[in-house]
Amino acid sequence: MTYCLAIKVNEGIVFCSDSRTNAGVDQVSTYSKLYSFGIPGERQFSILNSGNLATTQAVIAKVKSDIEKKEKLNIMNASSIRALADYLGQLNRQEIEKQSPDDASKYDATFIVGGQIGLEHEPKIFLVYPEGNHISSSHDTPFLQIGESKYGKPILDRVLSRETDLMTAASAALVSMDSTMRSNLSVGPPLEVSIYHTNSLEPGKYFKFDEDSEYLRIVKKEWDNRLREAFKQMPPIVWGASWDQSPDEQTSVS
Amino acid sequence: MTYCLAIKVNEGIVFCSDSRTNAGVDQVSTYSKLYSFGIPGERQFSILNSGNLATTQAVIAKVKSDIEKKEKLNIMNASSIRALADYLGQLNRQEIEKQSPDDASKYDATFIVGGQIGLEHEPKIFLVYPEGNHISSSHDTPFLQIGESKYGKPILDRVLSRETDLMTAASAALVSMDSTMRSNLSVGPPLEVSIYHTNSLEPGKYFKFDEDSEYLRIVKKEWDNRLREAFKQMPPIVWGASWDQSPDEQTSVS
Repeated sequence: MTYCLAIKVNEGIVFCSDSRTNAGVDQVSTYSKLYSFGIPGERQFSILNSGNLATTQAVIAKVKSDIEKKEKLNIMNASSIRALADYLGQLNRQEIEKQSPDDASKYDATFIVGGQIGLEHEPKIFLVYPEGNHISSSHDTPFLQIGESKYGKPILDRVLSRETDLMTAASAALVSMDSTMRSNLSVGPPLEVSIYHTNSLEPGKYFKFDEDSEYLRIVKKEWDNRLREAFKQMPPIVWGASWDQSPDEQTSVS
Repeated sequence: MTYCLAIKVNEGIVFCSDSRTNAGVDQVSTYSKLYSFGIPGERQFSILNSGNLATTQAVIAKVKSDIEKKEKLNIMNASSIRALADYLGQLNRQEIEKQSPDDASKYDATFIVGGQIGLEHEPKIFLVYPEGNHISSSHDTPFLQIGESKYGKPILDRVLSRETDLMTAASAALVSMDSTMRSNLSVGPPLEVSIYHTNSLEPGKYFKFDEDSEYLRIVKKEWDNRLREAFKQMPPIVWGASWDQSPDEQTSVS
């Protein structure tokens, strides 16, 4: 499996992904799931992917070859991030259908694309489905997740808003990733993080946290301790005036 | 959807379930998913269920009618909790296959059964799959979950062990339930909790937390605050000696 997420706050966008892929238990490998493209001063975007590795690699290869061949429609001349999401959705759907029209879902892939084109529009993030359509983040839900997304959602639901600063958003992404890695072995380091500053139109800052990263070790330990501590401070259960008996007690034979 | 869990610690077993079921957006209803049975002084057990409501109701109805008809094999004369899990698995599989042999998965249901029979054996919990087979909890993973289980797993992974006392385990169950309700609208109150004390062989204490439960409101607010607080105290990100550039920078056109 995979876990990738993008968080869009006023200050910019955080992209974060794990790097573990597997095709059966014997084939656990490390592949980057974060791709960044751009023309400094004009446009910058990153793509995250999850799903069938053959499909995602084929889509990314096509994205790159379309740039090289200067195709009429390629990500370097797309007029908006939304148009870019359309284009990715089209490539994704073509690739999935190419594999097997009968059992297409086996080859499904999902993408997150985000960035900024020119200064007229604010940065945007989109989640592109295997069907080719897409959704964007909203004011109330400033993040998008793909892959193994549930374990790491509760913390994001609680700490993120559009006003969150970029570094705090990046930290939330790593804690969300840590929660996922703790509960699901198929998501694992290295973790990749890319941070784009609104209106910079320059390549995002990129960092990779390896398996033996001291910081990841600290996040893991600290978050573990803090969660336990938070739980310890929870008020004791108030069971109400009296215990009830089970509603099914009548089925007891005495 | 549904979220149910059972936690087995040395002191006993905590059963916890939400009560929301839905068949399409218009049909969101409240049904109990917690059933308790027993013969005081001899045997006590509870059953939690998730999945197709018609299947779970049919299985529970059959469990009850087998008791009434004093069938040779019924839960009141099963020799062990494992035998009881076998029996439930058999009923479950029969019921699923009855609906439609072609697309059986639509009618899938999953059960957790736990309790104690006699004093010779310690209490046990089992998760019964639609296929009829089952797994039990282990020393390292003292809980079993069914339904929408991922959102609420990170906290359980961190705070539970066999040595956890029963009230703390109940509190962990409610916090896990709260995390799930916060991130997934299809899981909701009332919440039901039943607590069985090891070697009591008496009906478990039962409590129901309604939608407007003051305690649920407190759990929600306190856990929210404590998680935010815990996150705030996380150490700032250490990006290492220097920022790297994106590995795909070569694809930039400058």
